[in-house]
Amino acid sequence: MAKVITPRSEDYSRWYTDVIIQSQMADYSPVKGCMVIRPLGYAVWEGIQRELDARFRETGHQNAYFPLFIPESFMHREAEHVEGFAPECAVVTHGGGKKLEEPLVVRPTSETIIYEMYARWIRSYRDLPVLINQWANVVRWEMRTRLFLRTTEFLWQEGHTAHATEQEAEEEVLRILEIYRAFAEERMAIPVYTGRKTASEKFAGALRTYCIEALMQDGKALQGGTSHNLGQNFSRAFDVKYQTAAGGWEHCWQTSWGVSTRLIGALVMAHGDDNGVNFPPALAPIQVVLVPIWKSDDQKARIAEVAQKAAAELSRSFRVKADLRDEISPGWKYNEWELKGVPLRLEIGPRDLEASQFTAVRRLDRRKSSVPFGDLPAQVGTLLTSIQSDMLERCRAFLRESTRPARDYAEFREEIEARGGFYRAHWCGDPACEQRIKEETKATIRCVPLDGNREEGTCLVCGRPSHEWVYLARAY
Amino acid sequence: MAKVITPRSEDYSRWYTDVIIQSQMADYSPVKGCMVIRPLGYAVWEGIQRELDARFRETGHQNAYFPLFIPESFMHREAEHVEGFAPECAVVTHGGGKKLEEPLVVRPTSETIIYEMYARWIRSYRDLPVLINQWANVVRWEMRTRLFLRTTEFLWQEGHTAHATEQEAEEEVLRILEIYRAFAEERMAIPVYTGRKTASEKFAGALRTYCIEALMQDGKALQGGTSHNLGQNFSRAFDVKYQTAAGGWEHCWQTSWGVSTRLIGALVMAHGDDNGVNFPPALAPIQVVLVPIWKSDDQKARIAEVAQKAAAELSRSFRVKADLRDEISPGWKYNEWELKGVPLRLEIGPRDLEASQFTAVRRLDRRKSSVPFGDLPAQVGTLLTSIQSDMLERCRAFLRESTRPARDYAEFREEIEARGGFYRAHWCGDPACEQRIKEETKATIRCVPLDGNREEGTCLVCGRPSHEWVYLARAY
Repeated sequence: MAKVITPRSEDYSRWYTDVIIQSQMADYSPVKGCMVIRPLGYAVWEGIQRELDARFRETGHQNAYFPLFIPESFMHREAEHVEGFAPECAVVTHGGGKKLEEPLVVRPTSETIIYEMYARWIRSYRDLPVLINQWANVVRWEMRTRLFLRTTEFLWQEGHTAHATEQEAEEEVLRILEIYRAFAEERMAIPVYTGRKTASEKFAGALRTYCIEALMQDGKALQGGTSHNLGQNFSRAFDVKYQTAAGGWEHCWQTSWGVSTRLIGALVMAHGDDNGVNFPPALAPIQVVLVPIWKSDDQKARIAEVAQKAAAELSRSFRVKADLRDEISPGWKYNEWELKGVPLRLEIGPRDLEASQFTAVRRLDRRKSSVPFGDLPAQVGTLLTSIQSDMLERCRAFLRESTRPARDYAEFREEIEARGGFYRAHWCGDPACEQRIKEETKATIRCVPLDGNREEGTCLVCGRPSHEWVYLARAY
Repeated sequence: MAKVITPRSEDYSRWYTDVIIQSQMADYSPVKGCMVIRPLGYAVWEGIQRELDARFRETGHQNAYFPLFIPESFMHREAEHVEGFAPECAVVTHGGGKKLEEPLVVRPTSETIIYEMYARWIRSYRDLPVLINQWANVVRWEMRTRLFLRTTEFLWQEGHTAHATEQEAEEEVLRILEIYRAFAEERMAIPVYTGRKTASEKFAGALRTYCIEALMQDGKALQGGTSHNLGQNFSRAFDVKYQTAAGGWEHCWQTSWGVSTRLIGALVMAHGDDNGVNFPPALAPIQVVLVPIWKSDDQKARIAEVAQKAAAELSRSFRVKADLRDEISPGWKYNEWELKGVPLRLEIGPRDLEASQFTAVRRLDRRKSSVPFGDLPAQVGTLLTSIQSDMLERCRAFLRESTRPARDYAEFREEIEARGGFYRAHWCGDPACEQRIKEETKATIRCVPLDGNREEGTCLVCGRPSHEWVYLARAY
């Protein structure tokens, strides 16, 4: 609490770490690259799980759990997959005091172990579609890590589905992409661009990868979720087949998709400020904090009682905390709950008590209003709703003004260096041009929009004709 | 479905595996000792999590998440702990293609990594108590595994708390034991004995271990949950200290406690029968299944409509499935949902339709009753409540009649061989007598009751004076 948060303008990266550590969302662990998710950070993850899980269920998915360990040979069955993941695997070589006959990989993702099981379970078209999701930890040996955004171990969900036709698989992939997009905007208050990854950026083993891309306050993009059409790549490698109604055998069409604890990093980076993290009401572990203000013991008793009663009343509809600690000043409490990202504060002092009202203060902009005792839950509900939509609108405006066309390569290089952001740029489709952008500007093609981007133009890099524009940005 | 379940009387162990595999609760995986928890089994786990998590929260606990990996040296800091767990650890020696400087153990339990963090976080008596729980996967390299009951990887919750005084720690440990006991009886419909483990059976590193012990249908006991008073063993090893109000420094008093996916095995073994698994309504993923019966297309349309409307009405209060599959006979459906453990079936055929009623059938005993359309949700609620309490009562009666006094060692040896069960036996407290029982009868002291067991007697083995009796049983 007493420590100073580095301002964003001074060092955005240090600011990010400062607010996470000081708000006690997470901490570094003694294991290189692994973090500890403390109760505040974990409560945000539970909120994300609750919301996404409900959306997965509504669309027919069921949860299951597959082993943490994958026989090393499984990773080799799909050529692109092993190439993409083998370099970042953690490997168990000993168990129960003995060297293992075959090393076990700690899952970096579970396609291989899950599809081995699908091959056993799926027999007939009647068994399809298989729509399974798993909430689990995965491990990828990262060289440079950062709290929430890139850690050696992280928590995520990975959906894995099997379908009878390519079209059904493609529909599934886009259905999930839409769930991710809607969740990001409606709950995280973070607007995103959606689209398809280029061949060089797609998932190792996929036919096509779709993604949601958000913009952080420092002008860098962040990939928030991916949805992969795996085609028949894995079903061929693992022999996931079904008998058709006509009696023949076909390989299944598969998808996989996931979001991770990285989303918590996105929340911090998109909404936080120099006073701390700032959660949108839909995902805030505490939505409302009541802070009483008293000067005498006589006031204290009455005000504490009113605050407690209000907390009890509000807690029927909201996540509420009454901060009645005695040894700590109201100003200190304001700072602490701002640091921890509580979107709405209700103050009650002697003058409020006389006027039978609370003073409501929005974390977002410290805008104050009076809330009469008699109308408390309704007005708190209205305030939280407006904070949620104002946070989304603020991010929307930022995304809008940070997304610019790039027509001249030299100008683009200067501009992205100066202010980051997204760029709509024509690209001829040649991986060589994509590679040159990456090497010279550190920007990548974040996604190729699914529609609205068809127009004639010329490639930003080589000047050859192009029929669509793509989103470029530097990214986390 | 078409496969035959081995009857319990023929081979209890094969029956257990048969019902789990055939009900599709779980499956073997290609990784030795690791299982796949399929959607039906995982839904049971989610029910267990939901219920226990609420009870942990009510008693002030918060969830967090700590790393999967533990530096090998950490395990060595508490002498008993490493002795107990080192032999069953899985060890990561390579990461990112390189040999690690220090091998990492895949957590078999998280005391060491968590208390390293507590040592950093806890400074003052004001920081206490720390009440944290974690839902996670753990790995113990087991030689002989069995679905749910003993698997190399399993899912569990592990609570870890730190307190200012020994008394507070002891209160916490007993509070959790009571949560486990109440949960087992109220939700799992499994009555348990509670008590303290003997020195030879306690957790590696604990001062005292408390446990709940249940009885399976084959007469073997099953430990369902443990709650450990760790004293200051770990706080000394990891230097978890706090400054008292007076300004001095003290080591914290700590506890840890857990239950795992093993509880799902207990549910199967306690309630299942030769037709399949049998879930108590409180934890059944599907509580009510509606099975329509029709002979003509005309009947079909009307009956399907009634079944769907009833399912919609019931689903506001219960977990409901309407099985309207056309190609499958009602009898086949009855078998399938009995196999999968749905506690209540509602049949509706032409005669039921005429009488404006459903025929309700309890999975427990196939007892039938008529439920008029107009009173459906209320009567289903009553039926489920009575099934829940009847399942508990049946297990209670079985536990009662399977718990006998043991006074003569020779007779006890014969009796436990013949019919298993729990035995109340006097024990002098000498580990040699305990060891002899274990070697000669395969029975162990399951627990020393916390009260009601004080009486003068003589040790079952050596005949010396004893002041209390203990529970003996063979166990899983």
